[in-house]
Amino acid sequence: MNSPVDIDMIRYAAKRLHGHARRTPLLSSPFLDEIAGRRVYIKPECLQHTGSFKFRGGWSALSGMNDDASKNGVIAYSSGNHAQGVALAARMHGVPSVIIMPSDAPKLKIENTRALGAEVILYDRDTEDRDKIGARLAKERGLTLVKPFDDPLVIAGQGTAGLEIAEDVNALGIKNADVLVCCGGGGFTSGIALACEADAPTLRVRPVEPEGFDDVARSLISGKIERNTVTSGNICDAIITPQPGDLTFPILHRLCGPGLIITENEVQKAMAQAFLRLKLVAEPGGAAALAAALYRPDDITGNAVIVTISGGNVDPAQFAKAIATLD
Amino acid sequence: MNSPVDIDMIRYAAKRLHGHARRTPLLSSPFLDEIAGRRVYIKPECLQHTGSFKFRGGWSALSGMNDDASKNGVIAYSSGNHAQGVALAARMHGVPSVIIMPSDAPKLKIENTRALGAEVILYDRDTEDRDKIGARLAKERGLTLVKPFDDPLVIAGQGTAGLEIAEDVNALGIKNADVLVCCGGGGFTSGIALACEADAPTLRVRPVEPEGFDDVARSLISGKIERNTVTSGNICDAIITPQPGDLTFPILHRLCGPGLIITENEVQKAMAQAFLRLKLVAEPGGAAALAAALYRPDDITGNAVIVTISGGNVDPAQFAKAIATLD
Repeated sequence: MNSPVDIDMIRYAAKRLHGHARRTPLLSSPFLDEIAGRRVYIKPECLQHTGSFKFRGGWSALSGMNDDASKNGVIAYSSGNHAQGVALAARMHGVPSVIIMPSDAPKLKIENTRALGAEVILYDRDTEDRDKIGARLAKERGLTLVKPFDDPLVIAGQGTAGLEIAEDVNALGIKNADVLVCCGGGGFTSGIALACEADAPTLRVRPVEPEGFDDVARSLISGKIERNTVTSGNICDAIITPQPGDLTFPILHRLCGPGLIITENEVQKAMAQAFLRLKLVAEPGGAAALAAALYRPDDITGNAVIVTISGGNVDPAQFAKAIATLD
Repeated sequence: MNSPVDIDMIRYAAKRLHGHARRTPLLSSPFLDEIAGRRVYIKPECLQHTGSFKFRGGWSALSGMNDDASKNGVIAYSSGNHAQGVALAARMHGVPSVIIMPSDAPKLKIENTRALGAEVILYDRDTEDRDKIGARLAKERGLTLVKPFDDPLVIAGQGTAGLEIAEDVNALGIKNADVLVCCGGGGFTSGIALACEADAPTLRVRPVEPEGFDDVARSLISGKIERNTVTSGNICDAIITPQPGDLTFPILHRLCGPGLIITENEVQKAMAQAFLRLKLVAEPGGAAALAAALYRPDDITGNAVIVTISGGNVDPAQFAKAIATLD
């Protein structure tokens, strides 16, 4: 079976995103290199519009769908970052948006999504099925669903970050490195993997997940889609999903692995290092890959490591708690 | 009298810095535009190496002095950011460095400076004269003094940020805008002003200082160098200096003004907005210009404003206090 998303789609998405999404740099710090025991290069997608890479997928979807699909508006379900990415991209396209969010999502993400012009509908993450709610609303109002990861246009949009990583890594002459990606449903990871396969094929793209929510790591081992038993109760809310997607998993299985697992404490310490050494605000889920790079060096190969910081939308109290670990 | 620093020196410094200093972007957020009532463009020098623009001046000085001047090492006095900038630039040039720091400088800045390989000597900001200490040590050990702002090579280095601002502003087609610069002794402000005079002459470069430490604003009004009566006791430690420099003041007087004054509370709120909307860590002194842009809109002219975030070296407890103002 041909994949519904390929490198040509990513390159075309990059053209549509040009001048709208931010072209984020690769950052570094000698202090982080020392902790990790190898050169660490940071892809700071917290600096992307709406504070996460999700704006790339949102813009790709809105700019890639035809006028008929967008005329009544779009709908998305999201723990928050996809919500904001789609809401802003929709507003910039003059398209109404409805966002379905879990009721335990950070207050900040819910407020931001509303402030970006979206209609927000809350649901209970443990008892309700967001897919069913989304499908029903889409049908009733004639909205086009923009899935958070299992959508070819969205994967293509996230993959544009991978094109940038490959370009910068090639300019630096890096050949032997893992690319660590904060991984929920696998849209960001699979997009980056497709881009690196084409433009930097010696890199190894590896998903990073929180302990107890390692559906992708287990799926890569078993060779089939595995589920998490619970989907709440971890600070890394942005990357907690029930299972990898039907579209993302075959890409992950073909190109990625093995998965890396980190603890909540490691994530907090990584957020503190991003604050201290990079002057960046990383949300817990966004610091997962940095946690692996800094505190799981024996699980990584290569003389350099590329680390995505996937987002920075974190409540002040939670951030204060993380940086207090420095004292 | 010809100025000892001019646009040609800044352009030459930019060549020496190329590939060593970070080329920082201009960032923006629709939420900040809304607070300010005009488009806000952020120059995030907190993302510069060592977490502030001071690395530019440090690199410019080290790369611009001859081998004879650097053979015994360099010495600098600084509340912290200049210290780190010079320490890292010296280490990268293989030159020893001695740094004289006030004993009340943030612990983090003192520790970082030591970690970057410098010998740190502490002094009392209220009772001792750092210039005298620096001059004595320089003479005893044959060290070359790198002044924090009143040094042509340092001003030229800081001015490279102004060349980048001018380039980006011209690409955006912005003509009618104030450029707000967090201002201590005036090295950053005068360097940016010289660069803008040459490359973006319709912009107005304006220093921003904390209430009670407005020596530059008062000097611009009186036309001669005015002093602060005290030089400690404000959270904006990075931009508290006794008076503008003998080299910087004539440049400031010719090209800049009027000065803007902000309160500590406005600075904390600006740090919180940088956290919330830009995912950037700004130190208090580094957030002074953003505070003016957001909370003193009536003191500013133009339909856009360019804001420097000059540094991000802040202790976790102080940062937590600032972002707690969001609750």
